[in-house]
Order: sequence, then C-alpha cells, then structure tokens
Amino acid sequence: MTAAGAGASGEDALIARYFRPLATDPGAFNLIDDAAILKAVGDDIVVTTDAIVEGVHFLSDDPPDTVARKALRVNLSDLAAKGATPAGFVLTLALRAADDGWLAPFARGLGEDAAQFGCPLLGGDTVSTPGPLMISITAFGRVPAGKMVYRSGARPGDRVVVTGTIGDAALGLDILKGGAVAAVLADDATARQMLVGRYRIPQPRNALATAVRDHASAAMDVSDGLAGDLAKLCAASGVSAAIDVPSIPTSAAAAALLARGAVGIEAIVSGGDDYEILCAIPEGSFEAFAVAAALAGVAVTSIGTVIADTSAPRFLDAQGREIALPRLSYSHF
Amino acid sequence: MTAAGAGASGEDALIARYFRPLATDPGAFNLIDDAAILKAVGDDIVVTTDAIVEGVHFLSDDPPDTVARKALRVNLSDLAAKGATPAGFVLTLALRAADDGWLAPFARGLGEDAAQFGCPLLGGDTVSTPGPLMISITAFGRVPAGKMVYRSGARPGDRVVVTGTIGDAALGLDILKGGAVAAVLADDATARQMLVGRYRIPQPRNALATAVRDHASAAMDVSDGLAGDLAKLCAASGVSAAIDVPSIPTSAAAAALLARGAVGIEAIVSGGDDYEILCAIPEGSFEAFAVAAALAGVAVTSIGTVIADTSAPRFLDAQGREIALPRLSYSHF
Repeated sequence: MTAAGAGASGEDALIARYFRPLATDPGAFNLIDDAAILKAVGDDIVVTTDAIVEGVHFLSDDPPDTVARKALRVNLSDLAAKGATPAGFVLTLALRAADDGWLAPFARGLGEDAAQFGCPLLGGDTVSTPGPLMISITAFGRVPAGKMVYRSGARPGDRVVVTGTIGDAALGLDILKGGAVAAVLADDATARQMLVGRYRIPQPRNALATAVRDHASAAMDVSDGLAGDLAKLCAASGVSAAIDVPSIPTSAAAAALLARGAVGIEAIVSGGDDYEILCAIPEGSFEAFAVAAALAGVAVTSIGTVIADTSAPRFLDAQGREIALPRLSYSHF
Repeated sequence: MTAAGAGASGEDALIARYFRPLATDPGAFNLIDDAAILKAVGDDIVVTTDAIVEGVHFLSDDPPDTVARKALRVNLSDLAAKGATPAGFVLTLALRAADDGWLAPFARGLGEDAAQFGCPLLGGDTVSTPGPLMISITAFGRVPAGKMVYRSGARPGDRVVVTGTIGDAALGLDILKGGAVAAVLADDATARQMLVGRYRIPQPRNALATAVRDHASAAMDVSDGLAGDLAKLCAASGVSAAIDVPSIPTSAAAAALLARGAVGIEAIVSGGDDYEILCAIPEGSFEAFAVAAALAGVAVTSIGTVIADTSAPRFLDAQGREIALPRLSYSHF
C-alpha cells in the first residue's frame, strides 16, 4: 500500500485519502514506501491473520464501519488470547469499485478502532475484484520473549474459563438472516439490536491480555464455536474437559430464548463468532486471574475442568448427563 | 490457520494435508496455534503485503503451482528491493471449494518456492468465497536495524538502475489474452513461452538484496510499470530523472517486437508485472554494486540519471527527444 504524489493513480489517491491518516506509526512511513518496519525491541512478535468475506463473514448491507471494525477486531481477539499487546496491522482490501460512500465510513471505523486498541495501520494492498468484498488483516503483537500463551499448555485439573457471554453473535446472525430468532424477538427491538451488535462488532478482550499471559496455561479465542474451539484446545494440549453447560455465561436475551425453547443449547455452544477468550487456568491461579479480570473490567466465568483423557470434551447438563452436539463448529469446507 | 486433531473439520484437514508441511519454522508451531512467533534477534522486521486476484493478477487457467509461486514471489520481490532477507510469510487463501486437483499443485509450488527462497509458511487463514480466487500474502524479512532501503533516498547524480529485463511480463499477458503479440509470434513458440513464463512466474531478485542494502540510495520493485514506479520513487525522494530509453534492458523477444513495430515502447515501460528492482546508485558506488550483482548472478543496467527537479521523470529517445507516455502504470481504480 503506497501513496505517491506525482504519478498518483486512482489507487494511490484512494490510499492517500482514506488510509494514510491511519498510518500513525513511524514504521509505516506514511504509506509512501513498499514495506513497513516493525521493531521488536527485545520482545517476540506475535503474528496472526484473519480474513472476512462478504456474504460469508459479514453481510452486504452491514454498515461499512462495522465491517472494518470486525475485520480488525477478529485479529485483535487472537492477539488478546495469546497474551500479546497490539503493535500494528497490514490490510488487504479487495474492492469491486472505489466507492467513496463505502470507503469513507469503512476507513473511519477502522481508524477509530486502530486508535482505541493502539494498533496502527502499517501498510497493505488495495486490489480490484469482480467478486465479493474481502478484507484480510495480518496483525502484530508483542509479548516478552517466550511468553506467548499457546493452545497446548492445558493440564488436568485446570479450570476451563471463558470471557463475556457465549452465543449472542450466532443469534444475531440468525436475526439478520430472518431466521427463527427474528420471529421470536419480533416485539423486542432492544434484544434484537444487542444480538445483532454482537455479530457485527465483536468485543475483543485485549484488556485481559496481561492477565491471560500471567495466569493461563493455554488460551485461544472462540471464533468458530465454543464446542469446536474447546476440542481444538484440548487436542493441542493432549487432554479433555468436562463442561458444566448451565455454567456457560449467556446474555439475558440468549437465556430467555433458551428458557422459551426458541433455540437449543447447540446454537449457543456451536454458533461461532463469539470472539471471547477461552482459557485454562490452574486452580491455584484462578483467584488472582479473577481479580485481574475484574480490574480489567472483563467478566470471566469458570465453566468446567480439564481432565486427563484424550476423548472429545463432554458437555454435561444440570443432571450430569452428556449433551450430544451434532456439529461442533463452523467450517468453511 | 490452524489444524487440529480431534474436532477436525474439512478446513482443518485441508490445512493439515497441504500446508502443515510448509510450516517448517519453529515459530509456526506446526500450524496448531492461532498465531505464529517471529523473532527479530536484533534486526528490524520488514513487513510487506501483496494480494493477487483471479482474473486480475492471474488467469483462471494459469497452472495452480504458478499462481502460488507468483503470490509468494511478488512479496519476495518487495523484500529484495528493501534489502531484506526473507524470514517467513502468512497466507490468506479465499477458495470457492476445497478442490484437491487445484490445491495439491498449489501447495507443492508454494512449498518449493518457500524452501528455495528460505521463506517458510508461518500461518494463515483459509476462507470460502463465492467469487474469484484470491491469495493474499504478508511476507516478513530482516534487515540490520535502520538499514531498510527506502524509496526516498535518491539524490541528484545517482544512476538509475534496473535488474533483468523490462516489459516481458506485459507482453506475456497480452499473449495469454490472445492480443496482438500472440498473432505476431504465432510461429515462435519459444518466444511465446518465455514471455508467458515471465508473466506467470516472476523472478524476484533476492540474490541482490545485500548489494542493494550496501549500495542503493533508494529502491523499490517494478510491479505496476517502470514509468509509474520510477515516478513514485522520484516523488518520494523529491527528485526527477532522465531515462535513456534505448538503454532500458529488454529481452531478445521484446527487442524484436519493438524493432518490427509490433509493440510500442509504452507497452514496455508502462506494462507492469516485471518484478525487477529499480534503484538509485550513487556514481561512486556503481562499480562495487555492479561487481556484487555479477557475483549474485543478477544482470543490472544503468538506464539514466537522477536529476534535481520536481517534474515527472523524462523518457528520452536516442536523439534526446522526450517520449510521451499516455499511461504511466497500472492502477486498480
């Protein structure tokens, strides 16, 4: 992503107008070079990349500023779960046309989030496509050398902990698609709006990154569904887990939908798009972790226990009976 | 990009099968984590990102292994021009379907280039799209602290130098599109094949990176066309340049097409997709640079001089008359 003066093309003008203001890091060289510089200053650089595609991860009529925020936040969420402090990002933007009416709010939303999360734009590429919009972001964070939190460190006896609430985003997507939830909540605009907001604008838990780094034995963010993502964390750690389903934190709206039988628990635990942190916390560290989370203003809930087994994690109801989950998580293929 | 055991989805299986073998760097954690680690070990990390889109940067019937090579090489070319040594890359792959017949050769080509250029896969994201294939790569390189070569350092009196030959890739694209060049070269399969190969598989000049770092006052890679890219380098440096067009290095095939009048010089200097290095070399360093280039096996040609002016660079014919260039380079918008 480069924006030149003389010889400026439409592409260069677009970059200069909308994206140069976001390139506040000196290593971005005001987007006039071919590459950016990232200084590690003794830390490890944590690299993560996530793309969102129109019609797959966001809807054509989602407001452009929310599309931008989601594109960045799904990456910030990965950094948070790895215990990393945001350092910057590069953006690949595939557009059908240079539409100012879309680009202006997109860049504004992106810039506001970049400032809020301390994650400046370092560079990128803008390309034309005849197909759906696509935004691919590679984000960088810093951790003290050797301190990234892996998926693979969970040990038997650790608590399984999640942040925030689970399932809201999947319910929000159902509403946007005019599904069953939309009909049930036809008279409750507040609940509909909250759930849709959770789908469109994830709340990455970067405020918790230090606490995760200090206390978690393993962590990842919940993006494809709690059940499937927990299975991945357990597989990477060579363990299993027993989850107390009634303990899984839900919003009041989701709890009401569950209580009315409007949705099943599988919609909550397999829905995806939560962008909460899932982590394993050794029992002896839990109190300190909970205190740190409270100071950070992030709700954390213990939902089960890591166990020494290699079978898939089990989700148990209030009577201790296993709940069958036909689909663990979202898969693109 | 993560590939888990239990709970493995089609996406995970795809990643495990095709991409895990490419993740040879310890910081990639065999693609089982959400993020990778990049160690700077005292160097600056150079970050660059370039995406290629089906129908825009490559053609639907281009062989998948050449698509993979091009996706990585356009980024390697940026690293070379910045004087950086490749350190790794992350891949975003947007696919319509998980087609083994396409993915197997794609991954093979990518793996061979990753090994050849010492640039291992660190992570990525695989998403489904209803639209054209898109491959976005963010590549990382290392330079000693403060030693990245900018666009902005060219000074009056420096020589303007390019590597390799200019214009072949644009002619190759014309052939693939069944344009005028295809007809003129109907009886010359060798020339057609060479030009098409130059379009499909760029030859990034990473072997020259150290020489560029040691001697160039400014550098960038030629991706959008020599004329436009030179204008950008000059604008960033606050200078202009006088280019001796007959000195611009062309392949025998391109020279013959020019001599026959089958193509004009503007197709050569504004065509794009060259992925050669364009740099400014102070006169006193040119001999040492040329020696280093010869040792690296990379052809370098002096094509003009940087001058103290702020107008656009001038392209002069053998009689010193300025050649008008209606279009400087490719722009997506």
